[in-house]
Amino acid sequence: MITMDPTEPLPEELASLLELFHAGKRTALARAISVIENERPGFQEFLHRVLDAGPRAQRIGVTGPPGGGKSSLIAALAHLYRAGNEEVGVVAVDPTSPFSGGALLGDRIRMNDLANDRGIFIRSMATRGSLGGLAATSKEVIDLMDAFGLTRLLIETVGVGQTELEITGAVDTVVVVLVPESGDGIQAMKAGLMEIADIFVVNKADRPGADHVLNDLQSALHLRAGGAWAIPVLKTVAQTGEGVPELLDAVDRHREHLEESGELEVRRRGRAAVRVREVTERALRGILWGGTGTAALLEAGLDEIQRRTATPYSVAASILGVLLNGD
Amino acid sequence: MITMDPTEPLPEELASLLELFHAGKRTALARAISVIENERPGFQEFLHRVLDAGPRAQRIGVTGPPGGGKSSLIAALAHLYRAGNEEVGVVAVDPTSPFSGGALLGDRIRMNDLANDRGIFIRSMATRGSLGGLAATSKEVIDLMDAFGLTRLLIETVGVGQTELEITGAVDTVVVVLVPESGDGIQAMKAGLMEIADIFVVNKADRPGADHVLNDLQSALHLRAGGAWAIPVLKTVAQTGEGVPELLDAVDRHREHLEESGELEVRRRGRAAVRVREVTERALRGILWGGTGTAALLEAGLDEIQRRTATPYSVAASILGVLLNGD
Repeated sequence: MITMDPTEPLPEELASLLELFHAGKRTALARAISVIENERPGFQEFLHRVLDAGPRAQRIGVTGPPGGGKSSLIAALAHLYRAGNEEVGVVAVDPTSPFSGGALLGDRIRMNDLANDRGIFIRSMATRGSLGGLAATSKEVIDLMDAFGLTRLLIETVGVGQTELEITGAVDTVVVVLVPESGDGIQAMKAGLMEIADIFVVNKADRPGADHVLNDLQSALHLRAGGAWAIPVLKTVAQTGEGVPELLDAVDRHREHLEESGELEVRRRGRAAVRVREVTERALRGILWGGTGTAALLEAGLDEIQRRTATPYSVAASILGVLLNGD
Repeated sequence: MITMDPTEPLPEELASLLELFHAGKRTALARAISVIENERPGFQEFLHRVLDAGPRAQRIGVTGPPGGGKSSLIAALAHLYRAGNEEVGVVAVDPTSPFSGGALLGDRIRMNDLANDRGIFIRSMATRGSLGGLAATSKEVIDLMDAFGLTRLLIETVGVGQTELEITGAVDTVVVVLVPESGDGIQAMKAGLMEIADIFVVNKADRPGADHVLNDLQSALHLRAGGAWAIPVLKTVAQTGEGVPELLDAVDRHREHLEESGELEVRRRGRAAVRVREVTERALRGILWGGTGTAALLEAGLDEIQRRTATPYSVAASILGVLLNGD
């Protein structure tokens, strides 16, 4: 009955893809991502093989309300990493992001600039309106980039919905980006951003009100019981690059803190637990609704519901009975 | 192994709640909703019993971008229904809605007015940041209101996220609310609102630009192949009640269309199918992660992942093997 055995031989096509992937071919990464996104036969076996080395890259989430300049900030960070010869992956999980087409001209130029650099791999993933599973896939794409050997992964989310929060949980360091416009400091606390931030950035800090938001945030952070990591609040101007090296330093310091405190292993274990649950449930859904037996049960049950001789609850119980007990 | 049998006797407390519910006690509806929301033991058996009569109420979804006056429009519709002595249920699935506290003064007065009317039952449900299951619960709350005998159900969503789209799929008639401000017509098409609308409303139609948006929408609708239902585009001013009787008429005409074309049964069957899937998967998740056997397997698997001797994919395969094959 099991449809997934990760130790099974790969389909031939994926076996040759795996070779190219391990050889570091950029096109193999792109093809592997498509395989994962489309859940092609053997994709879990493929992931099982490429992930056996475990996570290595630094995973940085950049989140915050729309219009904060997250994409520009990611572009600025990516440029700095490239100057240091790091291989960079960018995943934008946000349909309004410049990475996926909603760009201002300035951002677009920056992005095109990045897109021509072969040391950077950019992938946009839409979330809006999709029904289930996409959060899991986004995280698997991040894993693929990691396994491919990209050393810095920058993940952009809007940070309001469930999917975005889940993806935020998939990174080591969460950078929350705000802007000087009034109220943002308070908004951040309301929206739960306070709980997820490892680093706060007030971007567009050349605008009026930057220090006000900065002070707001610092007061709010001061009120919270101090953990082992003192959450820094930084000012940046992504368009000019001002403050970006300091942000990069803070990200590195947070990574050191995670490693030294053992928190990195705790976070990775938590992520692995979430992943096991997702993979299990996805496979189970496949077994549950892919089989002709349950499909027929479902149709018969819907007839009964329409005749008022059953409810969704009794139909669900019958389906579960067949799946688990064979009766 | 099955943990859900809807024909089992109810826990004593729920049995007496069921009596009060069937007797039409308003407090019983409120308590029943809490039971569902908190997934208290026996909640599925309770739902099985109250839903045996099937859906009867008219379910109207009101959606659109924030700031369109959806809450005011719902209040205006509710007032009209109350004038006709209908019993009305309102479910607001939107954390920024006046129903849940983000009100302008005018809206707040209208809402308080409604809250004092015992023929109206209002329930707000937050979605933001919650992890899974809430969409299902919201729909079960709508079912409860229906089973209780409320005849008109008004469901407010923002209509952007996955949860909101799912809930929109849980109603008979979808009213999409826009405002005269430029670009909204085009935005609507982009955001997929065009695909879900049964009726378009340009609210705040006393503002400049209303006719422009109206024409935009009508042109866009004209371009689409005509179905059996010609989607009306109406103008309203919720604050004064202007155009609201016409909206109510359009909703009724749509309901008639659904009944006569057989589409109502098709939609209800589709909803029942979604519900069966949700209930089955929720129960399965409970069995999967509630058992001590799988919990121990998960922990052992995480240790192996940390030692790089397993991946989430091989651990998931082991857990599935135990659940389904007992090996």
